[in-house]
Amino acid sequence: MGVLNKRIAVLAGDGIGPEVCQEAVRVLKAVSEKFGHEFTFDRQPMGACAIEATGDPLPDQTLEACYLADAILLGAIGDPKYDNNPAAKVRPEQGLLKLRKSLGLYANIRPVTAYEVLLPYSPLKDARIAGADMLFFRELTGGIYFGEKGRIADSAYDHCTYSRFEIARIAHLAFKAAQNRRGKLTLVDKANVLETSRLWREVVQEISPSYPDVAVDYLFVDNAAMQLILNPKQFDVILTENMFGDILSDEASVIAGSLGLLPSASVGETAALFEPIHGSYPQAKGKNIANPIAMILSAAMMLEHFGLQQEADLVRRSVQVALDKKIVTQDLTPPTLAYSTEQVGAFIAYCVLGGA
Amino acid sequence: MGVLNKRIAVLAGDGIGPEVCQEAVRVLKAVSEKFGHEFTFDRQPMGACAIEATGDPLPDQTLEACYLADAILLGAIGDPKYDNNPAAKVRPEQGLLKLRKSLGLYANIRPVTAYEVLLPYSPLKDARIAGADMLFFRELTGGIYFGEKGRIADSAYDHCTYSRFEIARIAHLAFKAAQNRRGKLTLVDKANVLETSRLWREVVQEISPSYPDVAVDYLFVDNAAMQLILNPKQFDVILTENMFGDILSDEASVIAGSLGLLPSASVGETAALFEPIHGSYPQAKGKNIANPIAMILSAAMMLEHFGLQQEADLVRRSVQVALDKKIVTQDLTPPTLAYSTEQVGAFIAYCVLGGA
Ligand SMILES: [Mg+2]
Ligand SMILES: [Mg+2]
Repeated sequence: MGVLNKRIAVLAGDGIGPEVCQEAVRVLKAVSEKFGHEFTFDRQPMGACAIEATGDPLPDQTLEACYLADAILLGAIGDPKYDNNPAAKVRPEQGLLKLRKSLGLYANIRPVTAYEVLLPYSPLKDARIAGADMLFFRELTGGIYFGEKGRIADSAYDHCTYSRFEIARIAHLAFKAAQNRRGKLTLVDKANVLETSRLWREVVQEISPSYPDVAVDYLFVDNAAMQLILNPKQFDVILTENMFGDILSDEASVIAGSLGLLPSASVGETAALFEPIHGSYPQAKGKNIANPIAMILSAAMMLEHFGLQQEADLVRRSVQVALDKKIVTQDLTPPTLAYSTEQVGAFIAYCVLGGA
Repeated sequence: MGVLNKRIAVLAGDGIGPEVCQEAVRVLKAVSEKFGHEFTFDRQPMGACAIEATGDPLPDQTLEACYLADAILLGAIGDPKYDNNPAAKVRPEQGLLKLRKSLGLYANIRPVTAYEVLLPYSPLKDARIAGADMLFFRELTGGIYFGEKGRIADSAYDHCTYSRFEIARIAHLAFKAAQNRRGKLTLVDKANVLETSRLWREVVQEISPSYPDVAVDYLFVDNAAMQLILNPKQFDVILTENMFGDILSDEASVIAGSLGLLPSASVGETAALFEPIHGSYPQAKGKNIANPIAMILSAAMMLEHFGLQQEADLVRRSVQVALDKKIVTQDLTPPTLAYSTEQVGAFIAYCVLGGA
């Protein structure tokens, strides 16, 4: 891969978002310095900070910058001021929902990795969780969350719908990812009960012969909820519909021991957004104590999305060095031994440049 | 409570069902001997054994016996012969589904208790799971599993519907149970997205003032999937709709360390069925090694349902004595120290009679 020129929209957002975004940008600058790529960063407001400034959680100018960008880096969105006010008409989260919809981000991709240093923080016993490494593909724009809903007399309803097209496009992404990993794909559904699940199974079965190097298995969602705890190591790529993915990827995220290390990507036909799975953590805002690693690993997913596999691997190895050397924030070590957000980011950037 | 006369339909079923049922009946006979109750046991075929005998997994005669009974004790249903044969027209599980439907069993009730002796078997670290004790109320006859479903062109659909009546009747059961426990009820829903969830929340909020001694809180289903692992001790009674209950009660069941200890009840307006949550475990059939405790604790739930609180408590205490003295089957102890199914049942019956 030659030298690239990429435009990156940076939506730092609220709470600790700006602090962790700054460290991701620092690491990306180290990557561009080392490999000669040209990254342009276009900083734009979204969320509570955008409401303050413009009254709109997703101003037109921000949305336009996202359309123009090759990828979007998002920090975190949300402020307690809005959470605790049920009368608030405009909410920071609306900006993110509108952004996902406007960009057609139909696949949410979430790795869950059991880092050695995190084992003491996992709620699972070490032997269960050590070595787990899975990758969720959650459909993000269909299913019951986006179906017709309403009231009739004394009843309420929600409709779940999936088309072959919606299933096939994310299934292909998941199969391709499995080819680059351990060659296993697990479809999670409830095909013994739901018609939409039977369609998911049909489409995956039809696509499967095109990926002969990927072994496919099927798990009912209730069993999957058990297996994630009983034996998380059995999973490689997990493919599932929107609501099941919401529940299971959140369940899986806590078994790794820290939300502060887990990145995510949301991709569409022409756009891609990268963000940590943690929230805006307003209590830590401005204190220089937030863990920037999930954000930095989100930037690594972005590099991979650009086809920069070597660069992505280097960022991940640099993160691993920081973890191994315990150059980590106070969520992962006693306060007296903890480093600041900036120090952790600077160390990882230093490693990227060949320093460690 | 005086002396009672109760007719109990016993559907021992398949695999280890008959063996564990025999021990539950043994314990119930000890209870009737000690307290002077008259229990009549009406044994009827259901499941694979009923298909062998009559071609029907739920013969009319069995269904009739269930209508006549004050309660139903069910062992386990299922045989690999049918699981591995997709062409099989009649399946053992159909008998159970038809029975639940015929009897209108709308509430599935499942306790999850972290027994001290099971801590080494739990996938969670001891400090997380020790002391956890929760009770699920899962709606069992509504929601997306029973909604209209089908195909239109290249799409599939499943409809989720709930009425106020369906929600209110199980909510009242859950509130009453919370009054007799630690006075906390958690409604799990996805009210930020689903209209049916908003109706659940409305109905629970309307009912709540009638139970001023019960504190109610609300949790989104994805967060609940995390909290069950992060801090299971926070839960007392958990109330939820059919599909969320399917996923979360299965997730919760594995954190306790053994499915062999978990009972359940399914109740309707006029009928009640008690069964262990484990399956028919065909590999262990006839070997006298199956753990009978989940079945015996299901019988204890039945006693409680009859209003026999003292009797139910005695059975539970007797089970605790067996666990404490390690008079348990080989799933909970090294094989050389293990007792047989019959020995465990006999010891618990002996305790009930005042022997230990
Ligand atoms: Mg979620
Ligand atoms: Mg289930």
